[in-house]
Amino acid sequence: MAITKTIRPGLIQMRVTNLEESVAFYRDVLGLDVVGKTSDGRVMFKTFDEFDHHSVVLRAAPESGFDYVAFKVTDAETLEELKAATEAFGYPVDIASDEQPGYGKRYGFTLCTGHRIELYAEVDMAENIPMLLNPDPWIDPPRGMKAQRFDHLLLYGPNIGEAVRYFTEVLGMFYPEYCNTPDGKPFAYWLTGGNKAHDIAFVEYEKPNTIHHHAFYLEDWNAIGHAADLIGKHRVKRDVGPTRHAITRGQTIYFFEPSGNRIETYAGGYAAYPDNPKRQWTVDEIGRGLFYYEGELIPSFLEVVT
Amino acid sequence: MAITKTIRPGLIQMRVTNLEESVAFYRDVLGLDVVGKTSDGRVMFKTFDEFDHHSVVLRAAPESGFDYVAFKVTDAETLEELKAATEAFGYPVDIASDEQPGYGKRYGFTLCTGHRIELYAEVDMAENIPMLLNPDPWIDPPRGMKAQRFDHLLLYGPNIGEAVRYFTEVLGMFYPEYCNTPDGKPFAYWLTGGNKAHDIAFVEYEKPNTIHHHAFYLEDWNAIGHAADLIGKHRVKRDVGPTRHAITRGQTIYFFEPSGNRIETYAGGYAAYPDNPKRQWTVDEIGRGLFYYEGELIPSFLEVVT
Amino acid sequence: MAITKTIRPGLIQMRVTNLEESVAFYRDVLGLDVVGKTSDGRVMFKTFDEFDHHSVVLRAAPESGFDYVAFKVTDAETLEELKAATEAFGYPVDIASDEQPGYGKRYGFTLCTGHRIELYAEVDMAENIPMLLNPDPWIDPPRGMKAQRFDHLLLYGPNIGEAVRYFTEVLGMFYPEYCNTPDGKPFAYWLTGGNKAHDIAFVEYEKPNTIHHHAFYLEDWNAIGHAADLIGKHRVKRDVGPTRHAITRGQTIYFFEPSGNRIETYAGGYAAYPDNPKRQWTVDEIGRGLFYYEGELIPSFLEVVT
Amino acid sequence: MAITKTIRPGLIQMRVTNLEESVAFYRDVLGLDVVGKTSDGRVMFKTFDEFDHHSVVLRAAPESGFDYVAFKVTDAETLEELKAATEAFGYPVDIASDEQPGYGKRYGFTLCTGHRIELYAEVDMAENIPMLLNPDPWIDPPRGMKAQRFDHLLLYGPNIGEAVRYFTEVLGMFYPEYCNTPDGKPFAYWLTGGNKAHDIAFVEYEKPNTIHHHAFYLEDWNAIGHAADLIGKHRVKRDVGPTRHAITRGQTIYFFEPSGNRIETYAGGYAAYPDNPKRQWTVDEIGRGLFYYEGELIPSFLEVVT
Repeated sequence: MAITKTIRPGLIQMRVTNLEESVAFYRDVLGLDVVGKTSDGRVMFKTFDEFDHHSVVLRAAPESGFDYVAFKVTDAETLEELKAATEAFGYPVDIASDEQPGYGKRYGFTLCTGHRIELYAEVDMAENIPMLLNPDPWIDPPRGMKAQRFDHLLLYGPNIGEAVRYFTEVLGMFYPEYCNTPDGKPFAYWLTGGNKAHDIAFVEYEKPNTIHHHAFYLEDWNAIGHAADLIGKHRVKRDVGPTRHAITRGQTIYFFEPSGNRIETYAGGYAAYPDNPKRQWTVDEIGRGLFYYEGELIPSFLEVVT
Repeated sequence: MAITKTIRPGLIQMRVTNLEESVAFYRDVLGLDVVGKTSDGRVMFKTFDEFDHHSVVLRAAPESGFDYVAFKVTDAETLEELKAATEAFGYPVDIASDEQPGYGKRYGFTLCTGHRIELYAEVDMAENIPMLLNPDPWIDPPRGMKAQRFDHLLLYGPNIGEAVRYFTEVLGMFYPEYCNTPDGKPFAYWLTGGNKAHDIAFVEYEKPNTIHHHAFYLEDWNAIGHAADLIGKHRVKRDVGPTRHAITRGQTIYFFEPSGNRIETYAGGYAAYPDNPKRQWTVDEIGRGLFYYEGELIPSFLEVVT
Repeated sequence: MAITKTIRPGLIQMRVTNLEESVAFYRDVLGLDVVGKTSDGRVMFKTFDEFDHHSVVLRAAPESGFDYVAFKVTDAETLEELKAATEAFGYPVDIASDEQPGYGKRYGFTLCTGHRIELYAEVDMAENIPMLLNPDPWIDPPRGMKAQRFDHLLLYGPNIGEAVRYFTEVLGMFYPEYCNTPDGKPFAYWLTGGNKAHDIAFVEYEKPNTIHHHAFYLEDWNAIGHAADLIGKHRVKRDVGPTRHAITRGQTIYFFEPSGNRIETYAGGYAAYPDNPKRQWTVDEIGRGLFYYEGELIPSFLEVVT
Repeated sequence: MAITKTIRPGLIQMRVTNLEESVAFYRDVLGLDVVGKTSDGRVMFKTFDEFDHHSVVLRAAPESGFDYVAFKVTDAETLEELKAATEAFGYPVDIASDEQPGYGKRYGFTLCTGHRIELYAEVDMAENIPMLLNPDPWIDPPRGMKAQRFDHLLLYGPNIGEAVRYFTEVLGMFYPEYCNTPDGKPFAYWLTGGNKAHDIAFVEYEKPNTIHHHAFYLEDWNAIGHAADLIGKHRVKRDVGPTRHAITRGQTIYFFEPSGNRIETYAGGYAAYPDNPKRQWTVDEIGRGLFYYEGELIPSFLEVVT
């Protein structure tokens, strides 16, 4: 790989209107482990395959949606450098004041798209981590959809060109694929800080601070089929899929958790490299890029966000 | 991801005793594209999914085996830094004099294990690259075993502790898994410069400059099964698999190409992160680590190298 | 199995408005072999895995749609018995006069639904059959969608209760699943003469002699995904899927060949046994029964027939 | 299908030296449901997908091995016909006196190979059957290896030519594949009474009344991989696989349950038809026929029976 300063999107906090049902869904259908509750009642999760204390937090709220995503950076020194670089880029930075058990200092700021982005360098290991000594692939067979990791998220908001500039110039990410409008304005960008096809993506959208989906990684196409079987069995509201993205080449299914946030389960995707040429999409073909089997845009995909 | 200076193992040159049969095998069974021949008759290949000029070279020789592997580094400046750091580490560095069409300057040196390692920063793009504008996943359905990329290699040789030190301290890689002997000596190490589970691995072995296998990446477990179908159909000499590695968690099948070099087709594997704790194997359990379904070491695995 | 007199639906003839494009589709996308042409220009096909002379015939016509399906029965004596029983059931029987190379005598009649059904006992083997001596699974890797066999068909027409009675009482088939309207009228029935989940199915529909789809069998869910990749690549008009039927439990994708006939590629499905209790669907849940992942009826599924 | 009188092998009783461990294995690793115990302590099982009262019985005994297999026939009248035909064939028939809860009258006899074979026409439905009204594919996600049904068995014993003659002439089965020795003596035959690739198979072997394996059906190649993951996790003694049979074309893995009986988990396989030509194997190629990926016979396969 190349020189990048962010390791991964390590923490996402989502608002849910029905905490109890959403918790049951993340636990029993997605198959995440409940790590515990914060003192103010938010519920923490991690996948069976993650090492950090927790990666997903659900917060009861009157409206579902996105609170923030936090990126883990390589070390404390880099964290301070990135704070300074973020301020130099023009975004005032604060220190997160809400409790995230196990997590060290988190800097946060509001991106031009209206989303809160956080950076941190330190987090405790979870109690329930994968085996380290002569490890089996898993301690117990994964449950539910067998989500392996919180993988990426897609945010909708205004002025994504600036957001992409922040993630590349300040955080050192690169974008393997992108779509501009016919007049050259950024419409959709997929960004990664490593070899994963994407860590975060943006779509240009008038309303700020909205989220299209957050995604969990599954083993392969067969796991996508198994997830779909559970969607059928549990009467989950499906959005699109099983299908393949031409963009990133991943295999996917989208659905809505009980509070209405869209979730993707995603598998495959190419290994991204910063020296490879970028793949470019035109707006008239982006539907096929998103849904390769359908060959066209699914209306709900652009219209339903939280 | 984190700060690493190498992008990937981008080029491997292998010796083959039967050039014609081995070329047919790489082309028709593995499914690589023949890029062309060097002026001295070596044959260049790339996968359908690679962008660089070529990634695999076969050279006719009286004995099969390994010539060298070359790692692509981030840029020309880094290349010079790494040259200096390699010399400072104690390895004399030369400039490769053999022709590799499309490749810029390559520095090379002999690792303590007896293997020639090269570094380069520049290589032309191939003529036949994946689509860039509104891309389909592939231009034509992949042929043969549908190899997606030259993925990694496993070298056998003496003093691998020093080799690991070179790859981590100089090249900036890290090792997600390792196995030491009961008295604490390095026995087997898996190293990566990015999120792939491994780019290169080493096993301690008395004879220098030997190779266990080089590996190509397939899409998933089903592609492993398809590769195995072709092994049956083409009467390929199978070594082990289809099976799963507990180490890296990848799914795999090993076999021998017509000149006797062992090849692996590999799928899956976890996303490696430098901040995750390392997985440790003991020698008495390494058989299960390598072959999770068999639960024990396959004798040929340690005995047959080229 | 039990006592049944029909072996399988062995021959289907379809009308196509664009013979050239449809032939190319069956050959290159579905992956069937062109067996040859009849003297009047119809094109015969078989899958790589079928033994009989041909199983699919395309006939150029001003409107796409269904000509007839023919069932192979166990022997010549049974054929005569079934002719008599068909006439006793009330359907006048004729001897088919159109050329089907390799086929022996075919009796035909018009079912109450308006469809022509044929019965035959003898057909020559194809020249290009699967291996018989120490056979590989296939002579060459299957092409395109890798269709293994003409599997079943779904006909739409009036008075399907009588059709079901004919297929069970005369031909000895049974129906593992069915759906009646709330007032007890037959709405949809799936029938089989062996252990396959279905050989033929009927849906009650005002317009006679219409066909919903004919289907080809694929190896598994992964083959369904591969078929979907080809749908994307070849810009095939997809209808529904990849998804699972709760009915028969098969995995599926529907799409339209260039002349507008709907084709299904289908995998899996339970082993049907005549002694097992029948599965029953209510009309309000049949959408979920057909499309288990979508959980509801896809409008085109009931509206588009040829 | 054609006229056959047997529906399926519906019941197998096996002897196990360690009842407790074997019961735990069938329940937790294979994923069968424990139906209950007979009054003399034998343990009854069925798969999640079977309708009959139970299909597998384990009996504690000093030596592991095969007690008997029972075939379900179409009806009571056929049962009596088959009793008479069996006696006419030369085998004295008795009425089984051991308790099999839920089962009606069972006729039994000793085949020339030394094995007890039984026939029955009636059995109660199990309490825990698959859904019948608007059914989901399963009530709960299948456990363990997700065995779908008791599928077939392979018996070793002398004079299998006579056994094949009994199963074809009396029971009406047919053999899609077979292997004779160079001097034309039957060596291995695969027999089916329906469209499944095999219901029972025989290999010529000096010692009478021995069993090679009994097999459970899994959904597909991916389920075979999942079964193999559990073999690794539970440290099950694997025999062969994951691999493909060229014979029947099924995908497979063999392993030993705690009492030493060999079990196969099997997926796929072609649809067998009585009118298709038979596939023939020569003894020198049968290794490849059994293990298509290995391309040769695995020694344990012929040597270890119970």
